[in-house]
Amino acid sequence: MEKAMPAGRQEKFNVVVFSGDMDKVLAAFILATTAASMGMEVKMFFTFWGLNVLRKKKLTSGKNILQKMMNFMNKGGADRLPLSKFNMLGLGPAMMKIMMKQSRIPTVPEFIQIAGDLEIKLLACTTTFSFMGFKKEDFIDGIDEYCGAATYLAEAREAKASYFI
Amino acid sequence: MEKAMPAGRQEKFNVVVFSGDMDKVLAAFILATTAASMGMEVKMFFTFWGLNVLRKKKLTSGKNILQKMMNFMNKGGADRLPLSKFNMLGLGPAMMKIMMKQSRIPTVPEFIQIAGDLEIKLLACTTTFSFMGFKKEDFIDGIDEYCGAATYLAEAREAKASYFI
Amino acid sequence: MEKAMPAGRQEKFNVVVFSGDMDKVLAAFILATTAASMGMEVKMFFTFWGLNVLRKKKLTSGKNILQKMMNFMNKGGADRLPLSKFNMLGLGPAMMKIMMKQSRIPTVPEFIQIAGDLEIKLLACTTTFSFMGFKKEDFIDGIDEYCGAATYLAEAREAKASYFI
Repeated sequence: MEKAMPAGRQEKFNVVVFSGDMDKVLAAFILATTAASMGMEVKMFFTFWGLNVLRKKKLTSGKNILQKMMNFMNKGGADRLPLSKFNMLGLGPAMMKIMMKQSRIPTVPEFIQIAGDLEIKLLACTTTFSFMGFKKEDFIDGIDEYCGAATYLAEAREAKASYFI
Repeated sequence: MEKAMPAGRQEKFNVVVFSGDMDKVLAAFILATTAASMGMEVKMFFTFWGLNVLRKKKLTSGKNILQKMMNFMNKGGADRLPLSKFNMLGLGPAMMKIMMKQSRIPTVPEFIQIAGDLEIKLLACTTTFSFMGFKKEDFIDGIDEYCGAATYLAEAREAKASYFI
Repeated sequence: MEKAMPAGRQEKFNVVVFSGDMDKVLAAFILATTAASMGMEVKMFFTFWGLNVLRKKKLTSGKNILQKMMNFMNKGGADRLPLSKFNMLGLGPAMMKIMMKQSRIPTVPEFIQIAGDLEIKLLACTTTFSFMGFKKEDFIDGIDEYCGAATYLAEAREAKASYFI
């Protein structure tokens, strides 16, 4: 360890999850859960399309017609995220899920569970909430904090490493 | 604050803006302006498609026919960036702009202004200039420095946090 | 240099290469080789689609039919990576390669050589190996280590800067 931490102080690892693509979200969870297993204090900040990971499966959500239209296309739900490549109307993600299962790699919903077990904090971006018209009831339980970029950056500036995914 | 800074020394926050997609560019500006508001010294390094943010709206640019063809497709102009998802020939970005306005979130051209007010430095990548055939007159005023990756990295290695977006 | 390094200790720069798109991979190599030229110790961790950079050109690879199908679509080979935009069935990358050559910017295969000359370490992600069904013989020579996220993060937590690309 290059820089000694004060006693009782954990090293921090943070990730901004901007993408809602299954492959990128899996990469974010693999890094986050690995960092937590190594004893680091981990926070994941879900913003923009990344919030789909934490949304319940509903037909749509939003306060006005424009938001409802956007959120109808922009489906939420951890188990129905698209792939960033070879999506093929859902065939790609289905293939990938089987391939992951064959290798005993957790799915996104399973990773959310594991993250909770490892005390990884899940943060949801309130700025995205406002322009997408989301409400807290559109989201799953287990979100640790609803906050903006300032709260996130106050953490990230102290982190040993942080990524934008 | 984990590591004390020498007196008169500001913490640094840097972003590489590689993407030219409106949603990612907005995320970059939200992080950058928030960091600056928190008192950090912020530099944004625009490279590849990210340079479209700082380009003037022209039919095309470039020195040879290949560059002109590429830059005709790869439209510049902060107010006509595509979305990374649901672009739908421009309908998606139009919807998103209205949604952002309803929530009083600045547009990309407004964020460029705000960045200037907050003394955020805007850097343009000279390597991209060379292979895309850009000239300084293709770009808006207010760019603080034209430089390469070495100049950028000399900053980033001292930053508390830096992202590739 | 903000923080003094112990004598004989080099500053570290790390990149996760998640993307297999030519433009993003070039950005990763430009940052990595620049950092190495500045005297930093550089490691590049290739994962998911990024592993295509280090794959040999074969019709396909994988251990079962699903993996073979995925890897048939997901072509490997440093000289046939797609562009993240304007791919146009390969016309975009072909145009970009000519534009890069006109500006004497190395191609991806050339950058792999240069990375070796600069003693940049190339790491290949074993987790991706498992679910994509890759074998070592599917890959080019010159990979320095086959490892997982924990090995990578042990490096990244000590880095002056690290990116997810």
